[in-house]
Amino acid sequence: MTQAPDPLERFYSVIPAGGIGSRLWPLSRADAPKFLHDLTGSGQTLLRDTWDRLAPLAGDQRIMVVTGRAHRAAVEAQLPELADLNVVLESEPRESTAAIGLAAAILEKREPGVIIGSFAADHVIKGAILFRQTIVEAVAAADAGYIVAIGIRPTEPAIGFGYIKTATPLEIPGAPNAQSVDSFVEKPDLATAEAYVASGHYLWNAGMFIARADRLLEEIGAAEPELLAGLLELADAWDTPRRGAVVDKVWPRLKKIAIDYTVAEPVAARGQLAVIPGQFDWDDVGDFASIAKIHANGRKRDLAILGEGARVLADSSSGIVVSHTGRMIALIGVEDIVVIDTPDALLVTTSANAQKVKAVVDALKLSGSSDVL
Amino acid sequence: MTQAPDPLERFYSVIPAGGIGSRLWPLSRADAPKFLHDLTGSGQTLLRDTWDRLAPLAGDQRIMVVTGRAHRAAVEAQLPELADLNVVLESEPRESTAAIGLAAAILEKREPGVIIGSFAADHVIKGAILFRQTIVEAVAAADAGYIVAIGIRPTEPAIGFGYIKTATPLEIPGAPNAQSVDSFVEKPDLATAEAYVASGHYLWNAGMFIARADRLLEEIGAAEPELLAGLLELADAWDTPRRGAVVDKVWPRLKKIAIDYTVAEPVAARGQLAVIPGQFDWDDVGDFASIAKIHANGRKRDLAILGEGARVLADSSSGIVVSHTGRMIALIGVEDIVVIDTPDALLVTTSANAQKVKAVVDALKLSGSSDVL
Repeated sequence: MTQAPDPLERFYSVIPAGGIGSRLWPLSRADAPKFLHDLTGSGQTLLRDTWDRLAPLAGDQRIMVVTGRAHRAAVEAQLPELADLNVVLESEPRESTAAIGLAAAILEKREPGVIIGSFAADHVIKGAILFRQTIVEAVAAADAGYIVAIGIRPTEPAIGFGYIKTATPLEIPGAPNAQSVDSFVEKPDLATAEAYVASGHYLWNAGMFIARADRLLEEIGAAEPELLAGLLELADAWDTPRRGAVVDKVWPRLKKIAIDYTVAEPVAARGQLAVIPGQFDWDDVGDFASIAKIHANGRKRDLAILGEGARVLADSSSGIVVSHTGRMIALIGVEDIVVIDTPDALLVTTSANAQKVKAVVDALKLSGSSDVL
Repeated sequence: MTQAPDPLERFYSVIPAGGIGSRLWPLSRADAPKFLHDLTGSGQTLLRDTWDRLAPLAGDQRIMVVTGRAHRAAVEAQLPELADLNVVLESEPRESTAAIGLAAAILEKREPGVIIGSFAADHVIKGAILFRQTIVEAVAAADAGYIVAIGIRPTEPAIGFGYIKTATPLEIPGAPNAQSVDSFVEKPDLATAEAYVASGHYLWNAGMFIARADRLLEEIGAAEPELLAGLLELADAWDTPRRGAVVDKVWPRLKKIAIDYTVAEPVAARGQLAVIPGQFDWDDVGDFASIAKIHANGRKRDLAILGEGARVLADSSSGIVVSHTGRMIALIGVEDIVVIDTPDALLVTTSANAQKVKAVVDALKLSGSSDVL
């Protein structure tokens, strides 16, 4: 009897690098999405941070990036190790089921039995070893047939994240911390978030999914058969000269739907979704309050300053300044302030209003100010 | 017996256009002082507003401007009617006694018995007819030998202005509202300002002085004999080919001292200073809170937007935005905010902190950031 290869040897990371990150306008733009920024002060972009975190798991030849055609050059500049074979370009955004599903279909066709993990290009994670331990467990659970999510033990009643309600421990070899998932819940209000945290049954949804590619495709097909058919047609043509023609025909007609709705929620409802609680620090840096928090390192009244060559003079001020202009920025007596200074747009708000930035972007779209989006 | 000419026919306006207006940084700069800005939305600079207010009093041939050499071109561009004869250029700033005293000495030499009024180039006044009535009274009181100040009936316990404490009504023909002055007091704290306003005996010091030139020079000489000697030496040479040489020799050595200390306070202490209460609206627009107040027109929760081509998108925000860059400025949930956006410097503060802007300018000087001053 031949021993099966280590599940991690069958593992492939997928990085969907698509979202602009509207709540980080005017830093994030259509042509400079969130994943191309250094929001942590690490000295490199979030995309590069993501790559560096994933490469040790299965090697840099086993990381696929799904991104828009417009971002190809920027992505390749960030990731010189990225193999051509592993670049999947979207002609237009079709949401996460199409993006992750296409990667799954291509990889399953190339390598039946592959286990894939989907990791956002623009999250912040600290604790590489803990991250790896969590993913190893997740891969084991995926190998056992589960669709696997990663949950983060809440450190505060955050209202900017979705939550995962856990059910019972699962007995999965190699995944001692796996639990079944009761349900996914959307971003709560503060009182609800406090109740979640107090209960001990809720984890932050880190937006990572690990599964056997065939299982993932099966679930997509159960929810959206036409979408699956399109993905399989694309995958059949992908490594052939027909790719361009089939993409042009099929991709624009794929249903735009988040993988949360096609896979995560229905599978959780059937009790077949597992979650591995991650012990590492995680943040989706969804808004400027998030960035300020990361930089304050728990210290209140601090002013975080980002941006090369930033010139900031602050008196009795706290919050975050991002300077991309080299201008002198003077702050006097403004607390929890958010000042984002770019060559063609300036945002002034407060941490408490950071979630409303998306509404401004929507208003700018409506008013025809697309030059600054 | 020949009737003496109407005192107003002997009147000459003097506009010292010198101060940068540090509390309005980064709008006001060494090379773009406060008087060269439109802070009221009138469509013209404060200097031009000042000219237009004074020209009806004695004609545009009887307005003298004292300004720095560096501002000559800008001043003349603003005031095409300004006669060459009426431009007094300072080689370097020597404070208000020297500036106003030199104007007085030159004018007295040219036209003995002249009555002069000194009016800041960068204040905001509404109510041209009331202003004229006040100045007519002031000129009558000056003709009677008084040094005359203009006071404004306080509409609120302002802490940004100096106050004039009145004493008793004076019986001056042509100046029925003249009162003697008990004393000048510096900017008070709020409690003191409230007591001042409640007492009914205090007026805001509008920083305008009207006097016979010979009386003014006499008072300068009583306080600072050397300074007066220098001014007379300058005036003797002024309309001669010796002007340049004498200016180079004398001007840099003149004592730097405000006219408040050489004239206003000592004369008030002797009970020889008159004040005319002005009924017009006045503001020295000393800081951004002042500008915001002027634009809010008494309405709270308003956002004043200044600057040609300003693009501002505001949500739940109030205060003032001055935009000199054409950038899109988005404000979300910031109240009583002050955002001053210029090509090389950005200020973010609140109305309550507006007086602290000068401290930032001082800090920038100390830190060697003179490029933005």
